[in-house]
Amino acid sequence: MAQNSTVEADPNAPPVTRILAQFASGHPSRGWSDAVDREAHRTLLNWVGCAIGAARHPAVAAALAAIQELVPAPQASILGRNERVDMASAALLNGISSHTFDFDDTHLKTIIHPAGPVASAALALAEHIGSSGRQLVDALVLGIDVACRSGNLVYPEHYDRGWHITGTTGMLGAAAACARLLALDVDRATMALGIAASQPTGVREQFGSMTKAFHPGAAARAGLTAALMAKHGYTSSARAIEAPRGLAQTYSTKCDWNEITDALGERFEISFNSYKPFACGIVIHPAIDGCAQLRDAHQVRPDAIARIDLKVHSLVLELTGKKSPRTGLEAKFSVYHACAAGLLVGHAGEAEFDDEFVVRDDVIALRDRIRATVDASIAEDAADVTITLVDGRTLHRFVPHAIGSLERPMSDADLERKFHGLVDPVLGAARAQDLVSIVRNVGAAPDVRQLVTTARAA
Amino acid sequence: MAQNSTVEADPNAPPVTRILAQFASGHPSRGWSDAVDREAHRTLLNWVGCAIGAARHPAVAAALAAIQELVPAPQASILGRNERVDMASAALLNGISSHTFDFDDTHLKTIIHPAGPVASAALALAEHIGSSGRQLVDALVLGIDVACRSGNLVYPEHYDRGWHITGTTGMLGAAAACARLLALDVDRATMALGIAASQPTGVREQFGSMTKAFHPGAAARAGLTAALMAKHGYTSSARAIEAPRGLAQTYSTKCDWNEITDALGERFEISFNSYKPFACGIVIHPAIDGCAQLRDAHQVRPDAIARIDLKVHSLVLELTGKKSPRTGLEAKFSVYHACAAGLLVGHAGEAEFDDEFVVRDDVIALRDRIRATVDASIAEDAADVTITLVDGRTLHRFVPHAIGSLERPMSDADLERKFHGLVDPVLGAARAQDLVSIVRNVGAAPDVRQLVTTARAA
Repeated sequence: MAQNSTVEADPNAPPVTRILAQFASGHPSRGWSDAVDREAHRTLLNWVGCAIGAARHPAVAAALAAIQELVPAPQASILGRNERVDMASAALLNGISSHTFDFDDTHLKTIIHPAGPVASAALALAEHIGSSGRQLVDALVLGIDVACRSGNLVYPEHYDRGWHITGTTGMLGAAAACARLLALDVDRATMALGIAASQPTGVREQFGSMTKAFHPGAAARAGLTAALMAKHGYTSSARAIEAPRGLAQTYSTKCDWNEITDALGERFEISFNSYKPFACGIVIHPAIDGCAQLRDAHQVRPDAIARIDLKVHSLVLELTGKKSPRTGLEAKFSVYHACAAGLLVGHAGEAEFDDEFVVRDDVIALRDRIRATVDASIAEDAADVTITLVDGRTLHRFVPHAIGSLERPMSDADLERKFHGLVDPVLGAARAQDLVSIVRNVGAAPDVRQLVTTARAA
Repeated sequence: MAQNSTVEADPNAPPVTRILAQFASGHPSRGWSDAVDREAHRTLLNWVGCAIGAARHPAVAAALAAIQELVPAPQASILGRNERVDMASAALLNGISSHTFDFDDTHLKTIIHPAGPVASAALALAEHIGSSGRQLVDALVLGIDVACRSGNLVYPEHYDRGWHITGTTGMLGAAAACARLLALDVDRATMALGIAASQPTGVREQFGSMTKAFHPGAAARAGLTAALMAKHGYTSSARAIEAPRGLAQTYSTKCDWNEITDALGERFEISFNSYKPFACGIVIHPAIDGCAQLRDAHQVRPDAIARIDLKVHSLVLELTGKKSPRTGLEAKFSVYHACAAGLLVGHAGEAEFDDEFVVRDDVIALRDRIRATVDASIAEDAADVTITLVDGRTLHRFVPHAIGSLERPMSDADLERKFHGLVDPVLGAARAQDLVSIVRNVGAAPDVRQLVTTARAA
């Protein structure tokens, strides 16, 4: 038996590659509750909004310029733009744009942003091959289940080590979704997952650069192309995920196989998807929420504030401890900047992570008065905020669950408001409203053409 | 400071991403000895032969069929075929074909097959942008240095854990080579390496399936597209390789930074490249060599053999311990099959890994008489072979260094013979001979057009 120098290999893992392939290719269409199906539509709406909102960002422009050097065939749409590219590149580019604002969805148990890899791959393929809206929604539910269960399998050890779990499990979800849309049989679906299993994308050092958003895009492209290769008979190991030298045991010392198999087809991970109210890493949302609540409750003026003390979960400083961000992208990893925005304007949308906003004198002055300390009693979705005023008074707010959490989810109206905030500046309010209706009903649409046509820029 | 749950992170690593970018973009053209330049030409010749030889293999056909669904623009050639595809897909497909026979080059210190990712990316880009032959050779030397030094950095822990090191370092070499060809400045070359650093490809569980050969192909494509993205201003972390949550510390517990910096620009890893005489994993070459030597010295007939005892290095059974391979691809991971071929026909070329040869009765009968045991006194490039004949006599041969090792390198004539064995069946002997001359002189060619035109099928 082969030896692994770092951990004991487990040769007895269940055949999860094939189990997931069977699930993705064989589960009945709409074989889940209305609540799950509704969450899939909410996930899609949120993802479309994020993709369109960032469509003109320099990251998308740079990636598109690179792709254009390959003279891509016009097979699929880039949401919010008028160019069309081959479907693999569309998957890449929509994956990049939808994650660029760090404003997309979050599977809270793993911090995976599942729509980026899965929806980007599924929609590009669905557009090109003429899938129905129902087929798209089915692929989305099943693909997200595969990605998030694969995350549950290895989280947190895998993430702690440095992998960006959205891109290192997302290619499996994208492959599953595309295998479903292509109607691959279980053998070929197994190969699709297997080929994808050789392509984990992303390390956390990239947070704060454009390459963070590249990870879901690359995962989407990898999954789509893996499914196309499997369709044409390209082979992989049928145990590529679970074997001793397969993906999971190679990139994680923690492999809880039950996370793949428990209640598979009964419990759907998309049920636990959440949507960000603020355009930055989810771990700072409770602190922003607390700052915004205090501002609104007490009409606090910035020059009345002497200092702000935050007690936060350890991940907050680990992930978002940048004290002096210089750009919008860096500011998304600064609890100091984000809370200054919450205090100044009452929220932290994409405008508050604009490069110019980040270096405004009043923002920096307020940011520098914020102290954050780790408190072991604070949960991941909680925060404790104390403002000391110049006159000596203190204001206090404990946030047990941030807005956007599973306990305080975004309502449909919240999601729609967020969608308009992202899409109106790109496509106009009327088109944005049309798109809301189209996405809300996509599961009943004969194809996805109306969705992508409406989501394209003129 | 961020914590890593598995190993202590090292925040003080030297800035190797930028150091390698500076080296790849700034090192003088042909800034090395004649011996290094000659080895680069030998590396290219061996790689071209391997790519053409496997051009019609089902793995290449399946991957090409998938790529054709994207309707690629005809920018670059697939060696040994007449289709042309976009340069990123050409990098992928030539990377697949050149590794499909497991017959390509090996950097023995790390078991990296460096030309697959690096030459595949560099030639596709060079063809499209009209680089000179000298620019191609420069890119090859520098890219292979980056890939192999990155391998030295993490080998053996990284490989032992389960990563296929050719695909998990090759994208860095490919990015370096393409950054060089695109004449990126050091800042953009740093970003190219950084974007590539998020895309390690391949786990060892895939050995024996088509996805093993996908790894160098995907690495080639990743490096090429990373360089294109960096050219257009896409950003990454400038410390993507070395930071605590960068690539190296995320995927390896062993990081010897000196392996990147020691004698950089003076010692070139391509000097230590070797070429396989046999069409299978390098670890079984000493045993095949010993079997072939005994066959030739004693004219041993198969039916005179009672048993064969091999003493081998532990990696032999770890990597190639398949006792009953059913296909050619599986047989490349069977020391039993390969040695049976050595005894029956005196060598182990691609024909001896044909599916039909593998299941021949006489091959199986001989294979089943072979016993292999691990011996701690046997080095990686050595083997000890004892044949016991039916009449009770024994024949013995100890091979201290296999043919193809640095101590017993393939001569130029050996390489040429190997090239013809691969290329003549595809392009004919006359064209193959033309191609030998063209590749041997490519460093002086005004462009690479003659090379790719001659290497294409009619």
